[in-house]
Amino acid sequence: MRLDPSVLAMPPPRRLAASLWDALVVLAATGAAYAVPLIELPGFLGPDEAWGIEVALTAVFGADVVVRARRAAAAPPGKRIGAWFGVALDVVAALPFYLLLGPTRLEWLDLLKLYRVAGAMHEVGRHYLGQETRLRLAFFVYWLALAVHLITCGFIMLGGVVLPTAPERYVEALYWCMTTLTTVGYGDVVPQTQVQKLYAAGVMMLGVGIYAYLIGNIASLISNLDPVRANYQQQRERLSAFMQYQGLPRPIRRHVHEYFDYLWEKRLVVDEPAMLAALPPNLRDEVALYLKRDLVLNVPLFRRAGEAFVHDVALQMRPFVCLPGDFVVRAGEHGREMYFLSRGTVEVLGRDGAVLRTLHGGDFFGEIALFTDAPRTASVRAVSTSDLYVLDKAMFDRIVAFYPEVAALLEAESNQRRSGVAADGGQ
Amino acid sequence: MRLDPSVLAMPPPRRLAASLWDALVVLAATGAAYAVPLIELPGFLGPDEAWGIEVALTAVFGADVVVRARRAAAAPPGKRIGAWFGVALDVVAALPFYLLLGPTRLEWLDLLKLYRVAGAMHEVGRHYLGQETRLRLAFFVYWLALAVHLITCGFIMLGGVVLPTAPERYVEALYWCMTTLTTVGYGDVVPQTQVQKLYAAGVMMLGVGIYAYLIGNIASLISNLDPVRANYQQQRERLSAFMQYQGLPRPIRRHVHEYFDYLWEKRLVVDEPAMLAALPPNLRDEVALYLKRDLVLNVPLFRRAGEAFVHDVALQMRPFVCLPGDFVVRAGEHGREMYFLSRGTVEVLGRDGAVLRTLHGGDFFGEIALFTDAPRTASVRAVSTSDLYVLDKAMFDRIVAFYPEVAALLEAESNQRRSGVAADGGQ
Amino acid sequence: MRLDPSVLAMPPPRRLAASLWDALVVLAATGAAYAVPLIELPGFLGPDEAWGIEVALTAVFGADVVVRARRAAAAPPGKRIGAWFGVALDVVAALPFYLLLGPTRLEWLDLLKLYRVAGAMHEVGRHYLGQETRLRLAFFVYWLALAVHLITCGFIMLGGVVLPTAPERYVEALYWCMTTLTTVGYGDVVPQTQVQKLYAAGVMMLGVGIYAYLIGNIASLISNLDPVRANYQQQRERLSAFMQYQGLPRPIRRHVHEYFDYLWEKRLVVDEPAMLAALPPNLRDEVALYLKRDLVLNVPLFRRAGEAFVHDVALQMRPFVCLPGDFVVRAGEHGREMYFLSRGTVEVLGRDGAVLRTLHGGDFFGEIALFTDAPRTASVRAVSTSDLYVLDKAMFDRIVAFYPEVAALLEAESNQRRSGVAADGGQ
Amino acid sequence: MRLDPSVLAMPPPRRLAASLWDALVVLAATGAAYAVPLIELPGFLGPDEAWGIEVALTAVFGADVVVRARRAAAAPPGKRIGAWFGVALDVVAALPFYLLLGPTRLEWLDLLKLYRVAGAMHEVGRHYLGQETRLRLAFFVYWLALAVHLITCGFIMLGGVVLPTAPERYVEALYWCMTTLTTVGYGDVVPQTQVQKLYAAGVMMLGVGIYAYLIGNIASLISNLDPVRANYQQQRERLSAFMQYQGLPRPIRRHVHEYFDYLWEKRLVVDEPAMLAALPPNLRDEVALYLKRDLVLNVPLFRRAGEAFVHDVALQMRPFVCLPGDFVVRAGEHGREMYFLSRGTVEVLGRDGAVLRTLHGGDFFGEIALFTDAPRTASVRAVSTSDLYVLDKAMFDRIVAFYPEVAALLEAESNQRRSGVAADGGQ
Repeated sequence: MRLDPSVLAMPPPRRLAASLWDALVVLAATGAAYAVPLIELPGFLGPDEAWGIEVALTAVFGADVVVRARRAAAAPPGKRIGAWFGVALDVVAALPFYLLLGPTRLEWLDLLKLYRVAGAMHEVGRHYLGQETRLRLAFFVYWLALAVHLITCGFIMLGGVVLPTAPERYVEALYWCMTTLTTVGYGDVVPQTQVQKLYAAGVMMLGVGIYAYLIGNIASLISNLDPVRANYQQQRERLSAFMQYQGLPRPIRRHVHEYFDYLWEKRLVVDEPAMLAALPPNLRDEVALYLKRDLVLNVPLFRRAGEAFVHDVALQMRPFVCLPGDFVVRAGEHGREMYFLSRGTVEVLGRDGAVLRTLHGGDFFGEIALFTDAPRTASVRAVSTSDLYVLDKAMFDRIVAFYPEVAALLEAESNQRRSGVAADGGQ
Repeated sequence: MRLDPSVLAMPPPRRLAASLWDALVVLAATGAAYAVPLIELPGFLGPDEAWGIEVALTAVFGADVVVRARRAAAAPPGKRIGAWFGVALDVVAALPFYLLLGPTRLEWLDLLKLYRVAGAMHEVGRHYLGQETRLRLAFFVYWLALAVHLITCGFIMLGGVVLPTAPERYVEALYWCMTTLTTVGYGDVVPQTQVQKLYAAGVMMLGVGIYAYLIGNIASLISNLDPVRANYQQQRERLSAFMQYQGLPRPIRRHVHEYFDYLWEKRLVVDEPAMLAALPPNLRDEVALYLKRDLVLNVPLFRRAGEAFVHDVALQMRPFVCLPGDFVVRAGEHGREMYFLSRGTVEVLGRDGAVLRTLHGGDFFGEIALFTDAPRTASVRAVSTSDLYVLDKAMFDRIVAFYPEVAALLEAESNQRRSGVAADGGQ
Repeated sequence: MRLDPSVLAMPPPRRLAASLWDALVVLAATGAAYAVPLIELPGFLGPDEAWGIEVALTAVFGADVVVRARRAAAAPPGKRIGAWFGVALDVVAALPFYLLLGPTRLEWLDLLKLYRVAGAMHEVGRHYLGQETRLRLAFFVYWLALAVHLITCGFIMLGGVVLPTAPERYVEALYWCMTTLTTVGYGDVVPQTQVQKLYAAGVMMLGVGIYAYLIGNIASLISNLDPVRANYQQQRERLSAFMQYQGLPRPIRRHVHEYFDYLWEKRLVVDEPAMLAALPPNLRDEVALYLKRDLVLNVPLFRRAGEAFVHDVALQMRPFVCLPGDFVVRAGEHGREMYFLSRGTVEVLGRDGAVLRTLHGGDFFGEIALFTDAPRTASVRAVSTSDLYVLDKAMFDRIVAFYPEVAALLEAESNQRRSGVAADGGQ
Repeated sequence: MRLDPSVLAMPPPRRLAASLWDALVVLAATGAAYAVPLIELPGFLGPDEAWGIEVALTAVFGADVVVRARRAAAAPPGKRIGAWFGVALDVVAALPFYLLLGPTRLEWLDLLKLYRVAGAMHEVGRHYLGQETRLRLAFFVYWLALAVHLITCGFIMLGGVVLPTAPERYVEALYWCMTTLTTVGYGDVVPQTQVQKLYAAGVMMLGVGIYAYLIGNIASLISNLDPVRANYQQQRERLSAFMQYQGLPRPIRRHVHEYFDYLWEKRLVVDEPAMLAALPPNLRDEVALYLKRDLVLNVPLFRRAGEAFVHDVALQMRPFVCLPGDFVVRAGEHGREMYFLSRGTVEVLGRDGAVLRTLHGGDFFGEIALFTDAPRTASVRAVSTSDLYVLDKAMFDRIVAFYPEVAALLEAESNQRRSGVAADGGQ
């Protein structure tokens, strides 16, 4: 828990010490906020206990004045005025009024130290990225608990409950406070005097504010529960609406839904190219290589082409999913892509529909499209759900231009195929 | 209802059996959660009934320990520790304390089995895509009903209601619970002792949380009611604001609004190109062909060009709507598109405004723009609201380059038109 | 108010008649829902009044059976089953039980007719685009008022209020209903018997649901109050954050803020190109011409170039705002744009900073950049806040290629300027 | 506070005077709304005080009639009818009924002047951009306080409280109003008569509406608290989900998270290119130059190239961050970028991994890639977290084409490097 920007400039061990000190101050300030009203109220804390608490608070707060003053001196010029103002509050909070004057109203000034608690929360919130709504709710519970304590003590002070012992009075006032803040309002404990009634009206208004703040935060939490899923689902719903509006026949609609369900089952729901685009170039390379390098190396031809070539190709491949029965390429079409089969099984079909060959994970097809504009000579159909990567001719040309030796290898390979079997996928 | 990832690896018939078993366990755990407090409270369940319930629970829970242990053994290594921890809870929940020791507080351990209910809900929620807020609300009602039952029993246990018979006590306590949770707080049934008051304060806080959670979910439900419509409407509102800010004259604004209303009436509100882009290539082709293939085939010329050509053209056509009186092309402009009239009627006007020809659904015009950069020689105006598809010259050139025979056909056709009538649309 | 899709196929006058009839049915159904409980309760409606009401309801509902049956016969096949099911409900609601049998519980079946009210609301909601949240709230108020009436009557029926006269009983029960639904819960009128208490618990839960639905809708209303403004503001805030993070000096930040404030003051906040892109081509032309045609015609040169040229140029001009003191072009830079000054004043500065010329709304400058790649020979600085339109060289080249006569005119004009004054803006 | 569009056309000093007058009118109208009910109620204001208040109100309102009439005369034609309608209301509000007739109900007409308060709020809201939800909440508190006062007075008027003195009655009624509006509903002060009960039911409904409006606004406030952070966080979460779904190994995931944390720590979270794109060209230049000019000038070579060149280069550089250990370029790859090291340290590594040279903030490398397509001859690895700017070859070529002298300088410099050390980064 860092309380001050100037702490950031410290070396790590001193930063840890500073954080621990700040945590201690937060603890002391919280203790003060709970203890001071009880010192005020008759019957809760004896003079010895009060004295002990005040000595401890004065010690911590006094030491903190020194700490804060040194930090203020080191603060950047633009923030120095604010820092010294904070130190002034620290000084006031540290003054030992109770120890010097006995029970006056001046010990309430200890609560000024809550300013440091708020500051610590602000720092934590600023540096803690992610789940900020949860953090805000946690801080809210802290302040709410404190407010409930103060409201309870306030009601006792105004004479709202008349019971023999102090704990009984506290429970009764707490019970009143809760029935009022939560707007339950049984009406078995109610304010009697005019002052109490105005006090109660204030507490009611506070209760409404607490409700609204709580609901607002929880609504915000819920609407951000799983943004990846929410986004995916909305895309799917829009597509459903589109297909219904357009009156697409049932088989096509089922086909589309199966595709989306498969993506979700495999958690392939995040758009890979968009994600990679959000990364800086070197991280993008690292992730893309991890995802695709093995696939490219599965292709025997590319394994011989060298690491740099593999790297360049992997960066340009786009992911692509095929459901069983889908045609990846159709004979007669003009192909402009080469395909890498990463997982699954596809079969190569001649123009007459006969299965010429079956390809498995690691195979590739359609490479002839990268050299010529001739139509595909065979169709390729997915047998099982298949993950493929696509390599566009345009992209590939740009890469191969840098690697004449690869171009030669590729040409030799496809010439051999064309003359030999003449029928593997995608020519 | 699948309770365990390891179930996913099973063959379908065993998966069904596993799901049915899990459903039974959920039922038994729910029954236990409702029954155990009533066993505790005097006057609700006789010893025989309690004995029977506990025997049944022990049987189901005991058998479930075996089922879970076998699944845990089959779990993937990374999840094995969690799986065995779950089995440990199952064992504790299955121990027949009541049968062995009679009524002690130990039978409350049966409620540990609710851990499996939560797990089952998590699984259902994870696999069930769409309407997740509704699902979350349904689960919430399950837990809320259970919480109300437990709170009611708790209030009876603390002596909050003093009535002769058990059902009367239950109704009175339930009534108190509801007035408190919903923050109505009549005040006719109120806690009397300090313990009861603290208990009531806790229930009030729970009520606030329930409120906030409920409202957050319903707000989320409402804001996602019809995303297609919401999106369309927002687009329309922005356009209205733009037109108002720019001070566009009333006829233009009415024209724009008519266009948007027509789109909505026909449910053409989802952006077709954007939707197609979200699909993988093969599904995209399937949908686009369904939508546009017949339109392309309506053009006699293209019918002769072969399936592959029709396919390629259909993929490149963009949808486009014209209101009555709108000019699709104007004489003298430089056209870069060919138009397919899918539905509606347009008329071809000469430079003098005379109607030269009327075209209907299935006709096409403006094809000369695909060959030359000469300005249009005639105007085309929509007579009724018309759905058109546009084919850009650039796209078309790229396609035709692969089909020399089609290029020849097209050229012949347009030469004939140009020399013959010299005035059908869009030259 | 159209109740049935089949109505849409009717000619307008019959549609109006159908809508009026549907409105009458909605009115009758609403009346039935309010009257039937009062017929049940003793002391509210005399037998004559009840008889009259039931006669009227039977007449309207009976006639409606005929209307609905004819519509069902005309419904599209896919919706026919649903339509006939609706007719069946109509028949049951129209049966004159009260008239035949006197006061039995069977007259409650009249409330089935509320099915038609729900259908009418659904139709209105589906066809009414815009402000759907407001519409939903209006429908909600309708159902809420009905629910309050029914709950009130129910409480009287259960004997919840014991008062001499019927109106007194109604007011007292209504008062109880409101205190419960709104969760105020004074506790001065409370349920006494067990049945009443369970009834009250149900009403409390309904109250929570109503709250949640209301708040969800109002939150949705507020978050969609002015999307144009919200969007603009968010853009401005992000820019502020960016500038603060980057530590931009105060003058630049003020400059940026002045720019955004000016846009807001002039309501130029909606992105013109994005708005135009949402329109179909012909509407886009219509709007763009309205906005820019006069500006282009203000340029004497273009006025001579003919309507078609003006049209093409207007479509390619992008809006652009300059604050006082901003440089539009700087001497020495490589210009690639021509500028049209639509409103405001700019001054042309030589390399030595001397003012060479002052330009006003309707003037243009920088046109030489459209012909050569030579650097600008003069600077242009805005004197007042100025609205300009920019024409890119690339765009312009593509247009002028179609108009050789315009190219000649332009060349002549700028040659003259270059040789003559040699110093107006932007060469 | 400007109340009228016509005020906008005034010169600044008159605008200030108009704003001050409007503020006075708002104050007077508010005072009237609080005072008139107290005049009605016995025991609150004596006849002298009432007389004094009415005289003051009549004076201000009467003067305002003149002011508004003059503004209405100057209003644009389209708004003139509305303006004169407003003046009519002003006249009615200004009529001195109380002074002429004594206490009748007619003095309530003074409250018509609240129309001007609403108008002023509307104007302020329209012109005040940013934090509009906060503004809406502030206005809401104004109206809420007024409503509470009126409801309180209404309850007294209906005889809801029976207490001797006027202040006691007011506090009691206010207390009742608050318990009802906040739905606390103690039940110690409750309506007795039927009229009071209906009045209370209305207040309850109003309370529900207030709650819903408040919660909706606060939810909207919370969901818009820090859009920059929310956006950044969501991007990070999506990336996390993507990496988890893809099963990326832990080191890569940590690497990505470190990168995002660094960006957040440095507040580099806003996409620089996107932000610049939102600005008009001249502001974009101003900001980009401030951010990058010094970096370009750090390069000795460019310092000699002249301001115009530096300007053009700065506009084309894209920001880019490298974490310690990241490779910026790798030997053997085909480089297409030049790098400017703005902050941090990188080391140049030969093909054998030996450190050839260390570069610091202000250095540049990889410039040879801008001339040739030869692979990089050395690797460059970040030693510390480094901020770089990237200059694409394509962009650079376009710029240098305009500056032959710079091309010569660059060529000379890199020839020297290549022949000399032959191994600094990025060749």
